[in-house]
Amino acid sequence: MEATEHLQMAAAAARDAGHLLARSSEATRNAALAAMADALRDGMRDILAANALDVAAYTGTAAFLDRLTLTEARVEAMARGLEDVAALPDPLQRTLADWTRPNGLRIQRIATPIGVIGMIYESRPNVGADASALCLKSGNAVILRGGSDSAHSAKAINVALQRGLAASGLPPACIQVAPNSDRAYVAAMLAGAGLLDLIIPRGGKSLVERVQREARVPVLAHAEGLNHTYVHEAADPAMARRIVANAKMRRTGVCGATETLLIDRSIAPSLLPLLVADLRALGCDFRADAAARDIVPDLHAAAAADFDTEWLDSILSVAVVDGVDAALAHIAAHGSEHTDAIVTEDATVAERFLRGVDSAVALWNASTQFCDGGEFGFGAEIGIATGRIHARGPVGLEQLTTYRYLVLGTGQIRP
Amino acid sequence: MEATEHLQMAAAAARDAGHLLARSSEATRNAALAAMADALRDGMRDILAANALDVAAYTGTAAFLDRLTLTEARVEAMARGLEDVAALPDPLQRTLADWTRPNGLRIQRIATPIGVIGMIYESRPNVGADASALCLKSGNAVILRGGSDSAHSAKAINVALQRGLAASGLPPACIQVAPNSDRAYVAAMLAGAGLLDLIIPRGGKSLVERVQREARVPVLAHAEGLNHTYVHEAADPAMARRIVANAKMRRTGVCGATETLLIDRSIAPSLLPLLVADLRALGCDFRADAAARDIVPDLHAAAAADFDTEWLDSILSVAVVDGVDAALAHIAAHGSEHTDAIVTEDATVAERFLRGVDSAVALWNASTQFCDGGEFGFGAEIGIATGRIHARGPVGLEQLTTYRYLVLGTGQIRP
Repeated sequence: MEATEHLQMAAAAARDAGHLLARSSEATRNAALAAMADALRDGMRDILAANALDVAAYTGTAAFLDRLTLTEARVEAMARGLEDVAALPDPLQRTLADWTRPNGLRIQRIATPIGVIGMIYESRPNVGADASALCLKSGNAVILRGGSDSAHSAKAINVALQRGLAASGLPPACIQVAPNSDRAYVAAMLAGAGLLDLIIPRGGKSLVERVQREARVPVLAHAEGLNHTYVHEAADPAMARRIVANAKMRRTGVCGATETLLIDRSIAPSLLPLLVADLRALGCDFRADAAARDIVPDLHAAAAADFDTEWLDSILSVAVVDGVDAALAHIAAHGSEHTDAIVTEDATVAERFLRGVDSAVALWNASTQFCDGGEFGFGAEIGIATGRIHARGPVGLEQLTTYRYLVLGTGQIRP
Repeated sequence: MEATEHLQMAAAAARDAGHLLARSSEATRNAALAAMADALRDGMRDILAANALDVAAYTGTAAFLDRLTLTEARVEAMARGLEDVAALPDPLQRTLADWTRPNGLRIQRIATPIGVIGMIYESRPNVGADASALCLKSGNAVILRGGSDSAHSAKAINVALQRGLAASGLPPACIQVAPNSDRAYVAAMLAGAGLLDLIIPRGGKSLVERVQREARVPVLAHAEGLNHTYVHEAADPAMARRIVANAKMRRTGVCGATETLLIDRSIAPSLLPLLVADLRALGCDFRADAAARDIVPDLHAAAAADFDTEWLDSILSVAVVDGVDAALAHIAAHGSEHTDAIVTEDATVAERFLRGVDSAVALWNASTQFCDGGEFGFGAEIGIATGRIHARGPVGLEQLTTYRYLVLGTGQIRP
C-alpha cells in the first residue's frame, strides 16, 4: 500500500480510537498501561528475537549498536517505565482556569488531549515504548515511525503494547507503527494536515530540521541544544568549577549539555586555568578564542564556526566576554534558545541575564544538564521543545494536552 | 523588491524590534499605545483621505463597502480601542507555575512574547489597528498584510501608528505593513519559517483554509464556525426559545452564530413550532430534515450538504435527533470544533454533552454568540482558534504569549 494511503487509514483509525481514549477514565488508562507493561514482559522472547534481527543487520558504530541492542534488563526497564507513567498524576483532570462573568456565566478552561500525534524517531527502540506510554496517559492516539535500523524491534514492541491495550478494553489503534520505514512514510506524515494534530521528531539535527522545514503539521522539537554557561565575575569560584564540569562532562551526548563556556575577562586569569584543569581531568578538549588562549596558551584555537557547533562530545568552546551584556549578545548570536546558565553571586546581574536570555530554560547557579523532564518533576518527557508555540522546554504529560472551554449558564443570551 | 526579499528584511527588523519590545516595561508599552491612539487622531485627515481612495476604487457589495468605509467616528473608535488595550492587565507579568524540587532548585514558568507574528486579513481596516495594539501590548512584533481593497487605508493607519511608536521611544519596526498586497507576499509569509513565529489569518473560509493548508509556520485560526445548539428534551422551553433565537439571529455574520438546531424527537412536536415562529418573526429561513418537516411542513427541505454549510446568514439547518448521543454524533460528523451548546435542565445530560463534544467552546444553557474574547473577559481578541495546539477559542493577550522557564539554584549539579 502506498504510504499516504496507509497513513490516511491509520490516522482515521487513530482518530476514532483517540475519541474513545479521550473519554476513558483515569483508571482505565492506568490499567491499560499496567497491561501493556505485562505484555512487554510476556512478549520478552519475541521482542529480543526481533531485536536480534535488527542487531544482526546493523553495520554502523559501536555506540549506536549499544543503543540499538535490547536485553532482558532493558525490556524490563521499558515495562517499569510504563508503570511509572501510570503512577503519574492524570494530566486530563485539570481545570486550568475558572471564573465567573458579571452576567453569571461561569467559564472553565479545562485540559483535553491534543488528538493524534505523529512520532518520528531514530533508532533507540525504547523511545517508541516511552512515547506510547506518555501519549496513552494523556489521552492521545499516536502513530510511531521509527528508524529502519530498529524496524523489527519497534514492530515487536508495538505488537506487545497493542496486546496489552486490547486486554484492557482500549482500542489497539491508539498506538500504531508505520508499516515500513521508507522515507515516503515520513513525507506523508509531514504533509498530514488534518490527519495528524502534532508531530514530535526525536533524533539527530538533520532529521529534526527536515521535519521543522517541511511539516505542514505543528511540530514540537528541538534541532539542537547549543547551550552556554556564563561565569560572571561575581561567581563563587568553587561553585563555578563544580557547575561547569557537570554542565559539560556529566553526559556529553544529551541536549542539555553545555557546549560553550563564556567567562568574564576580569576573572578569567585566575579562574579559567582551574576550569580547564578540572575539565581536562575529565577528558575534555577545548576550542578557545584568542583572549582565552592568552591565559591558557595550549588550548586549541577556535574557528569562527566552532561557536555555532553543538559538539555533543568532550569538547568545549571557550570565549572571554566583557560582562553580562556581552554574554547575552554572544548567546543571541550563537545560541539555539534551548538552555543557558549564569553562575554569579550577584542577584542583580542574574536577574538581568535571566530576563535578557530568551532560551526555553534559563538557569542561575545550576548545571544546564537539569534541562530534563524528570529533573523538572514531570516524571517523564517525550522531548524538549525550542519552538515558540504551545510548549517550550521539557515536554511532559501536561504539554501533551491542550485545552477547551466549558461555559455554564442559566439561560444567558448576548445583548 | 521581490516579496520574499522584502519579508526577510521586514522580519529581521521586526526580530530586532521585538527583542527591545519584549524587554520594555509595561509603562512603556502602555505609553506607546496611548501615543498611537493620539497619532490616529492627529492623522485623521490623512487616514480618511487614504480610505477615500480605497472606497472610490471599490466595486463589490454594499455590505462590504460599509465595512471598508472609515468615518471620523470609526477612526475615533479605533483610537479608543488602543486605549482600551492599554488598560488591560499586562500579559507578560505572569508566573504561570512556581515550584521547588527536592534538590532545592526553584523552577518558574513565566510568560514571554511569542516573537514575530504575521497577520493576514481581509478588508476591514480596523483589524490592522486592533491587531497592532494586541501584539504590541503582548510584546510581539507584527507584520500585517491586509487585503488589496483596503491597502491605502492600511498604510495610512500604519504610518500613524508608527509615528506614535517613535514618539514613545519604541522602534517603529514593531508594527509593519506589507509593501503591497500582491499574493506573492502572502506566499512568502506562509513559507516564512524562521522569519515568522506565528501566522494569524482573519477573513473568509477560503483565505483561512489556504493559510492552514500551505503555511510552514504555526497558525492560529478558525476556517469556519459550524456551530450547533442542541435542545434536549429536558430543556426549559422558554429558555430554549430565548437562547435559540439569540444564538441564530442576534448577529448572523459572526463566527459564533448557531448554524444548526438539533432538537430531541420527544419535544419537537410541542417546541419546534414555537422556535420556528420566533425565528421567522426575526426573518430566519430554514433547511430542515424530514422529521422536522413532519412537524412543521412548510420548512424548506434540507439537502445533505446543508448540515455542512456555515450559513453566516438568516438561515438555520434543523435536524431532529434521538437524545444526547445522537446529537454528539451529528456534531462530530458535521461540526467544525468551534462552538456548540446544549439547552437542558438535566445536569447529568449536560455533563455528558460537555464531556462528549470536543469544540473549543462548549456551552450549557447559554447562547453560542458568547464565543468572543470580550464576552470571555479578555478585553479584546485577535481571533478565534479551532486548531489543537497552543490556544483554542478566543485568542486574547494571554494567548499571544508563550512561556519559558527560570531555574534558580544555589550551585546544584546533576548527579
